[in-house]
Amino acid sequence: MGARVGEKTVRFDMPPNILGFSSVVGKDEKNGPYGACFDITFEDSLWGEKTYELAERKMQLKAVETAIEKSGLKAGDIHILIGGDLLNQIISSGFVARQMGIPFIGLYGACSTMSDSLLIGAMSVDGGFAEHVVCAPSSHFATAERQFRNPLELGTPKTPTAQNTATAAGAVVLSAQRGQYPSVISATPGRVVDFGINDVNNMGAAMAPAAAETIITHLEDIGQRPEYYDAIITGDLGIFGSKLLIKYASELGWDLSGVHRDCGMMLYGDNEKMHCGGSGCGCSASMLNGFFLPEMIKGNFKRILFVATGALHSPTSALQGETIPCIAHAIAIEMGCSI
Amino acid sequence: MGARVGEKTVRFDMPPNILGFSSVVGKDEKNGPYGACFDITFEDSLWGEKTYELAERKMQLKAVETAIEKSGLKAGDIHILIGGDLLNQIISSGFVARQMGIPFIGLYGACSTMSDSLLIGAMSVDGGFAEHVVCAPSSHFATAERQFRNPLELGTPKTPTAQNTATAAGAVVLSAQRGQYPSVISATPGRVVDFGINDVNNMGAAMAPAAAETIITHLEDIGQRPEYYDAIITGDLGIFGSKLLIKYASELGWDLSGVHRDCGMMLYGDNEKMHCGGSGCGCSASMLNGFFLPEMIKGNFKRILFVATGALHSPTSALQGETIPCIAHAIAIEMGCSI
Repeated sequence: MGARVGEKTVRFDMPPNILGFSSVVGKDEKNGPYGACFDITFEDSLWGEKTYELAERKMQLKAVETAIEKSGLKAGDIHILIGGDLLNQIISSGFVARQMGIPFIGLYGACSTMSDSLLIGAMSVDGGFAEHVVCAPSSHFATAERQFRNPLELGTPKTPTAQNTATAAGAVVLSAQRGQYPSVISATPGRVVDFGINDVNNMGAAMAPAAAETIITHLEDIGQRPEYYDAIITGDLGIFGSKLLIKYASELGWDLSGVHRDCGMMLYGDNEKMHCGGSGCGCSASMLNGFFLPEMIKGNFKRILFVATGALHSPTSALQGETIPCIAHAIAIEMGCSI
Repeated sequence: MGARVGEKTVRFDMPPNILGFSSVVGKDEKNGPYGACFDITFEDSLWGEKTYELAERKMQLKAVETAIEKSGLKAGDIHILIGGDLLNQIISSGFVARQMGIPFIGLYGACSTMSDSLLIGAMSVDGGFAEHVVCAPSSHFATAERQFRNPLELGTPKTPTAQNTATAAGAVVLSAQRGQYPSVISATPGRVVDFGINDVNNMGAAMAPAAAETIITHLEDIGQRPEYYDAIITGDLGIFGSKLLIKYASELGWDLSGVHRDCGMMLYGDNEKMHCGGSGCGCSASMLNGFFLPEMIKGNFKRILFVATGALHSPTSALQGETIPCIAHAIAIEMGCSI
């Protein structure tokens, strides 16, 4: 059962536990500074499949299967599969759900899907509607690039503010089972925020205000300063977007500089080919599951605020002259506070 | 707080009440047999806007505003807006969320979105995570046709099994407020079912097995016969898909023929131009909100099972030779059982 805290935050009375989690990434991600952290990596972006879409599906499927296995459960124990990806009609998730045979809820939250799905998943478990759920986002550079931007064959150069869609998937098993696990304590669902950015190659700038709003709302709601968290982790603002986040927040009286981390900045390290860093649903999903959750289990972080960010435009809306509406959802995860 | 019933069904202990609901439809829907039931209708498919996408957005926005108004609440009272539509990256819903300024969860469930959103909405309210939520799907013939099939200008003829995407939106306000309202008693989230249909002009046939599975699972879970409900309402199977549903269910030992209604068959009556009937998220949304809920309030139905159905393919997956994965979620609504 949940309770509302402050203006927009919900608290989970029996915090759902993260029983298992997984990450699956491609070559560029494997070659980044966190390459050794991921459960499964592969070299060729087709991963033995005939199309990039099939490769993305395989990634998401492997992530789901691995997370369930690591949690010690079986697919039949999972009551709801909550999936999402960047592809039109979220086909990666729909086909994975077909294969898994688990009741399915499909989300579209762009790169915010890891947060979005944890929010729905935690509500399902804490509300007594499901014993175990799996939350599973994915993205693939090659499927996203040709859908959102240009055919890969064109070799279109990137602008300096561009980010690279991560070839990555992650899955989290949330459960009502008690024990010493990282657990989801509270969540702050975000509003759509749009500061008028219309450059689809500058999504960090577009998403930074949404991240700032959600983080500040969350901190105000729970009555804490940023340092309450060992890390406040945004999804994929990248180098430029992260600078803007720190600046916006500072103008509003909040100094996030000490605790802020951004998965988009971390994933590829200082690989200049990636310009401002990583993006895509899989970017924050793989960093949460590959790095942050293991660090919590090791005792290096006690309490994190995970804030995946999403840009909700489409190629059609961009061509029709719309600016980029953005969103961010905050998920507070704490180690070992199990009831 | 919820509880699980049988294998896949969840029961809401404090059934969320439907405090307000609305329907907005275009000309063809207005000229159908239920034309007089809808709250707002318009003649020209652009509805004074520059693009069909803007017209769809306007429909969904009007539906949300009208439902909130009819519920006696204000936009600021709504804790979560749960939206979805057929467009790539669900842009209608994203932009409506931007305008409303309410924390937003975006779903992609194709034509199942009215059920999908009621499921998430009811969990949010019954679980204590939100006092009031709005569930809001939409679809528009002109935006869907050019995205999923052909440019309208081609005037491509339809095959006999084709259905017509409804130009329609609906919104439902679910609330923890007590009183004499229709309320959401239980829900059965569906699995993805795929019987191998690959004809995207025959979605009724593709979706019928998913509908059959979810309906039968629901009835088994709650231990009732079909006649327990005054109506079991599928979303948009159309004429052909509805025949298949009755046949499949009968082969499995369930006679649904007495209580089955299909929104896709109802929306346009016997208008032959619409071939097998209506489809799209707005089809079941407008029929639920324009006809079934008002009939419940008048006392003509005491108990309904609302089962919106969705086809989760994309133009890309169809071109890549995939069959059509389908889903159906069942939502049980009862009049006046408020606690």
